[in-house]
Amino acid sequence: MFRPEIKVIDCTIRDGGLMNDWKFDKQVVKDTFAGLAKAGVDYVELGYRADKKQYDTKAFGPWRFCDEKDLREVAFESPTKISVMADVGRTDYDSFLPKSDSLISMVRVATYIKDVDKAIHLGQHVKNLGYEVCINIMAVSHALEPDLDEALRQLADTNFECVYVVDSFGYFYSEQVHYLAEKYLNALNGKQVGIHCHNNQQLAYANTVEAIIKGINYLDASIFGMGRAAGNCPLELLMGFLKNPKFDVRPVLDLIQKHYLELNKELRWGYEIPYAITGILNKHPRAAMAFMKGVHGDTFSEFYDELLNVDDE
Amino acid sequence: MFRPEIKVIDCTIRDGGLMNDWKFDKQVVKDTFAGLAKAGVDYVELGYRADKKQYDTKAFGPWRFCDEKDLREVAFESPTKISVMADVGRTDYDSFLPKSDSLISMVRVATYIKDVDKAIHLGQHVKNLGYEVCINIMAVSHALEPDLDEALRQLADTNFECVYVVDSFGYFYSEQVHYLAEKYLNALNGKQVGIHCHNNQQLAYANTVEAIIKGINYLDASIFGMGRAAGNCPLELLMGFLKNPKFDVRPVLDLIQKHYLELNKELRWGYEIPYAITGILNKHPRAAMAFMKGVHGDTFSEFYDELLNVDDE
Repeated sequence: MFRPEIKVIDCTIRDGGLMNDWKFDKQVVKDTFAGLAKAGVDYVELGYRADKKQYDTKAFGPWRFCDEKDLREVAFESPTKISVMADVGRTDYDSFLPKSDSLISMVRVATYIKDVDKAIHLGQHVKNLGYEVCINIMAVSHALEPDLDEALRQLADTNFECVYVVDSFGYFYSEQVHYLAEKYLNALNGKQVGIHCHNNQQLAYANTVEAIIKGINYLDASIFGMGRAAGNCPLELLMGFLKNPKFDVRPVLDLIQKHYLELNKELRWGYEIPYAITGILNKHPRAAMAFMKGVHGDTFSEFYDELLNVDDE
Repeated sequence: MFRPEIKVIDCTIRDGGLMNDWKFDKQVVKDTFAGLAKAGVDYVELGYRADKKQYDTKAFGPWRFCDEKDLREVAFESPTKISVMADVGRTDYDSFLPKSDSLISMVRVATYIKDVDKAIHLGQHVKNLGYEVCINIMAVSHALEPDLDEALRQLADTNFECVYVVDSFGYFYSEQVHYLAEKYLNALNGKQVGIHCHNNQQLAYANTVEAIIKGINYLDASIFGMGRAAGNCPLELLMGFLKNPKFDVRPVLDLIQKHYLELNKELRWGYEIPYAITGILNKHPRAAMAFMKGVHGDTFSEFYDELLNVDDE
């Protein structure tokens, strides 16, 4: 599929950091950025810009905060742009320099639907500083339809670049992706729409392809699918699908071999039965992550029944 | 999705046997059949009925041959029926008893498109003995359209139950599945159509769902996706999608925990970069299986380039 508007956003370090508290070796991040630039990826999201008053900098690696000086040690100006994510309510507005003084091109504001007004406020702040802005409405598989419609109406009136469909729990299959892609594209006045999938049911890549078919142009993926729990859409598969000649999958394959097979052995993101169960049941993966760490001593089928009988938080 | 015509065919032992020469512990097969019967699976394919004049019975486990006495040690009469696969050119016609003397209900004839006449001949032989018959046209991603059309015309005139779309190389995504599902359903005069997917690009489950949406009713899956190379559609995910109350995923979860996590550690089917590469490039997985065994000493990107430059066998 070659459509020049398509942008690939790699979120390996940002979403993968949820598995290791962003304690990546600096050389790994440096190799990752260089490899992704060589592969022709449009944006590399190097982490969160979290509020240091709320998070202990000693408890987390640097990619929880993405200080400009840390970014400059691993990345460089190139056609591959740099993005960071900012959580509503966990971000210090004053931590953003004017765009002209920053290596960052794009800020993605992550929000639950109830906080969309706050997300627009934060987005407007960084937009005024000169950054491109995306709004990522998380956990949309738990959203009520009228709330979602209202949020999209408000977002249509902003000057942000893009709004994301985010399947935080890996619950969707093609029919929900088609439905939401059409809804977002119709509601957002020609704004770009993005897709961010989780792989609990091995559908992250499939759903990303379905989103492309429906006209979504901003595509999140990560190296070897690295991300929280079951992980994300594997970048190497997405690049096998996209026919735009600017992309080259080889540097991604090299990065997998050099760093990510090893990291996967240690951190174990990817398809696992507890993650499949939370995905099938449209639940947050936290119970599954606890199960994987041995906190639950139960069997898979007891875990399944336990989740069936638990109300949502 | 609840459609009473839907049949789930578990092929864990048959396709998984390609990873261990069918040397499954008898207790594992016994537990597997009992668990799948409890789960409400419609058919369990316990192996191949291979010709003992062509294959050394000492080199393979019993599920390469599926003798009636071996079947009776692990399985029993129940609403869950037993199937075996028979390869064109590798099957002794005389090895099949009349259906009334056999535990087997269904024979699935596996064929390449060039051998469809032979497949119909073998299918007719077992049909006359009283078995249900499926024809599985393998590697259809390499078939020429006129050859496929002619094969389907011939199959439309048989009294077999079902013809399968088989994505042997894990190459298809939704658009090809939709296309072939429609083609088969239109061509086959109301015969059932089946789908058998491989998971090279993590699309086996997604493509099975797409096939269901298009009206395909015979669905192959396997426990924890066990099958050659990248494996098949994971049964536990398919059961999460199908809403027919006769299915219960819990016995499948129990089997995974009791046997298949361990088998997976040993045999390593599932998503791996070499399998992804052969899937993306629409190639037989044999080169990738050799790479996984360390026969190639190359890097992933060298393997990719090597396959790009190799003509098909």
